Amino acid sequence: MGWRVQVVGGGVIGLACAWELSRNGHEVTVVAPAPGRDGASWVAAGMLAPVTEAHFGESALTALLVEGAGHWPAFAAALEAASGLAIGYDTAGTVTVALDASDRASLDDLLAYQHSLGLEASRRSASECRRLVPALSPALRGGLEVPGDHQVDNRALLGALRQACGEGGVTFVEGRVTAVENGPALVLDDGRRSASDRIVLAAGTGLPSIDGLAAAGLPPLRPVKGHILRLGPPDATSPVPLLARTVRGLVHGRSVYLVPRPDGSVVVGATVEERGTDTAVRAGAVYELLCDARTIVPAVDELELLEAATGLRPATPDNTPRIGWTALDGVLAAVGHYRNGILLAPLTAAAVAALVGRRPVAPLIASLAPA
Amino acid sequence: MGWRVQVVGGGVIGLACAWELSRNGHEVTVVAPAPGRDGASWVAAGMLAPVTEAHFGESALTALLVEGAGHWPAFAAALEAASGLAIGYDTAGTVTVALDASDRASLDDLLAYQHSLGLEASRRSASECRRLVPALSPALRGGLEVPGDHQVDNRALLGALRQACGEGGVTFVEGRVTAVENGPALVLDDGRRSASDRIVLAAGTGLPSIDGLAAAGLPPLRPVKGHILRLGPPDATSPVPLLARTVRGLVHGRSVYLVPRPDGSVVVGATVEERGTDTAVRAGAVYELLCDARTIVPAVDELELLEAATGLRPATPDNTPRIGWTALDGVLAAVGHYRNGILLAPLTAAAVAALVGRRPVAPLIASLAPA
Repeated sequence: MGWRVQVVGGGVIGLACAWELSRNGHEVTVVAPAPGRDGASWVAAGMLAPVTEAHFGESALTALLVEGAGHWPAFAAALEAASGLAIGYDTAGTVTVALDASDRASLDDLLAYQHSLGLEASRRSASECRRLVPALSPALRGGLEVPGDHQVDNRALLGALRQACGEGGVTFVEGRVTAVENGPALVLDDGRRSASDRIVLAAGTGLPSIDGLAAAGLPPLRPVKGHILRLGPPDATSPVPLLARTVRGLVHGRSVYLVPRPDGSVVVGATVEERGTDTAVRAGAVYELLCDARTIVPAVDELELLEAATGLRPATPDNTPRIGWTALDGVLAAVGHYRNGILLAPLTAAAVAALVGRRPVAPLIASLAPA
Repeated sequence: MGWRVQVVGGGVIGLACAWELSRNGHEVTVVAPAPGRDGASWVAAGMLAPVTEAHFGESALTALLVEGAGHWPAFAAALEAASGLAIGYDTAGTVTVALDASDRASLDDLLAYQHSLGLEASRRSASECRRLVPALSPALRGGLEVPGDHQVDNRALLGALRQACGEGGVTFVEGRVTAVENGPALVLDDGRRSASDRIVLAAGTGLPSIDGLAAAGLPPLRPVKGHILRLGPPDATSPVPLLARTVRGLVHGRSVYLVPRPDGSVVVGATVEERGTDTAVRAGAVYELLCDARTIVPAVDELELLEAATGLRPATPDNTPRIGWTALDGVLAAVGHYRNGILLAPLTAAAVAALVGRRPVAPLIASLAPA
C-alpha cells in the first residue's frame, strides 16, 4: 500500500525522490515551476566527486559523499533502463593539476588529507598528467590522479528522471508553492490547496520563500551563486575530443574544472560567490573562468562559447544537507545539498523512500535529520 | 522624375542609401534577408571615429573618414526628424589610454601621425585621463583626448533608418539575392526575378555569393571577423553610469574599446580576425576582450554579460570602400566599408543619390569608383 506524497521541487533531488517513491508504490505528485529545467541542477556540471570535493574540516561530509558515490552505478543502470535514455554516466576519472608551486603544495596537502580519509588518489608529475590528458598546458606543476571521481550529464540526467517519473505514474504540477499547511497540504501561488499523506521538501534555494516552515526545525539556507560556462566542441574537422576525462585545476589558488561531454563539448565551472539571490551573469566571473580554464587547457580558446549561466546552490551553515522528518507532521526535508546535489541524489532518494516507508536508515543518514 | 531603384542589402549602407534615394524622389526597394537586423551593422559598436581609426599608411582613407564624419550632424538631425526616433548620437568625444610604456610610445607615434594629418588630438597624463573618465584604472600610462571621435547607437540607427525608409515609401523584400542580371534585374533565392532602372549593391560580405558580378570590376571582398560584447549596466543602485564617453585602449599592444550607451550599458570590442566566414563566438576572443576591458576599466567586472556576438566586416584589399558605378549597366556599388560602415553611411548615401541622380560628385568620391 502506498501513500499520497507531494514532492516540492523539480531539481535532481525532487525528481530522484519522486521516481524512487513511485518505484516504492506511492502515489507521487511533483510540484515545481519548471520540473527538470530550473534550479541549480540544470546549471550544474554533473561531477560525482567525493574525493576532489573533500575539504579540510568536513570529514563527516566527505564520508557522506563517498557513501553517495557508492549508489551511483546501480542508480545509473536502473534509471537508463527505466527511462530508455542515456545519461552520460562516465567513470573515466579525474585529474587535478597545479599551476604554480603554491598550488602544487596545496594539492600535496590535499593528497595527504585524502589519504588520511582512506580515499584513493595518486601524486602525478606534469608529464604523467599530460599523458593522461594531452591537452594540458606544458606549464603545470603536476597534479593528482583521482580514479573515483566521475561525472554524469546533468541535463540528460534530469531528462531521464522526468521520463522515468512519467513512466512510473508520477504527476507533475507546474506551479510555485507558497506555503505548507497542516494536513500536510500545499498552497500554490494560484491559490490552489492540495492535501496529501506526506510532503517532501526538495525546493533548493526556493525553500526560504515558502511560508509555514518556521516550526519545521530546518537550519537557515543561503544561496551560493555559481557561474558556469558551456563551450562547444572544436570544429568538426578535429579528430578527437579535447578532453577524455574531467580536469580540475588550482590556478594561483583559484579552483576551476573542465568536464567533457560525449559530444565534445566542455563544461567549465564554477565560481563560489555569496551574493544573495543575484543571478546576473557578470563579466568578471566569466573572465575568471575563461582565464583559469585556458591557463590549464590552452585549446579552450578555440572552443565556441555556447552558454554562460548562473545557479544558486542551497547551502546550510555546515554545508551538509538535511534529510529526514521535520518537526511538522508528515513533512520530510531533502534540502541543503550545496555543491553535491547530483552526487547525493541517489542516496537522498533512497533515504527519503526508506523514511516514507518506515524502514530503518543507516546512522549516517539518521545523523542528517533536521529535527 | 525618379528611377526604380533596387538596393541589395539591409545593413546601414543599404538602408541609408535607400532612405536618401527615397528622399530624392526615387521608387526604392530594399532586398535583404533581414533588413535592419543582420550583417556587421547590427553587431557594430557605432563608433564614429575618423581620428582614432587613422592608421599609418592609410592617409587617403583617413581623409575619407574625416569627410564622412562631417556629414553626421545634419544626417542625425534629419533622420531623427524623419523617423521620430532617437538614435543616441553622442558627441562627448573619446579618450584613448595606454597600459604600458610600449603602448604609451605607440600612442605618441599615433598622435604625431594624427597631427601630421591635421587631426585634433591632445596628449593627456594619467591623472588628466582619470579626470575625464573616473572609472579608468590607476595603472595606466596616460593617453590621448580626441574630441572629434563620436558615437551613435547602431541598433537604434538601424531602427530609425528602417522607420524613415517606411515613411519615405521604400518597399522591403525579405529574401536573398542570388544573381544580378542584365536589365538590370535581381534574382532571388526563391526564383523571383525583378527588373528595375538601377541597382545599388550594398550587400557587405554577402556580395561574393551573388552571381553575375564577375564583370562588374569590383575588387575581391574578404570577411574580417570581429567579436563584440554587450555588457549591462551595473546594479540599479549605482548612482552614475560607468562611462560618460568612449574609451579606447592599447593593452600590451592590443586594441580594445568601450562604448557607453545612454542606458548605462557598454559595448566592448572588437577583435580583428581573418578566419574566412566563421562566425562562431570563441572562448579565446571573449577572454581577450574581457581581459583588456577590465584592465583599463576594472569595474567592468561587475557588469552583466548580456551578449557575445560576432560580425563579418566586408573589406577590400586596401581597406577602402568602393562607391560608384560598376562596369555593369545601371549597377552601382557601395561596398567594402570594413570597420567604417556606420561612420561612412551618410557620405555613402549622399554619393549614391548624387550618382543615381546624375549629379557631379567630389573628386574624393569619384576616386572610390570601382570601375
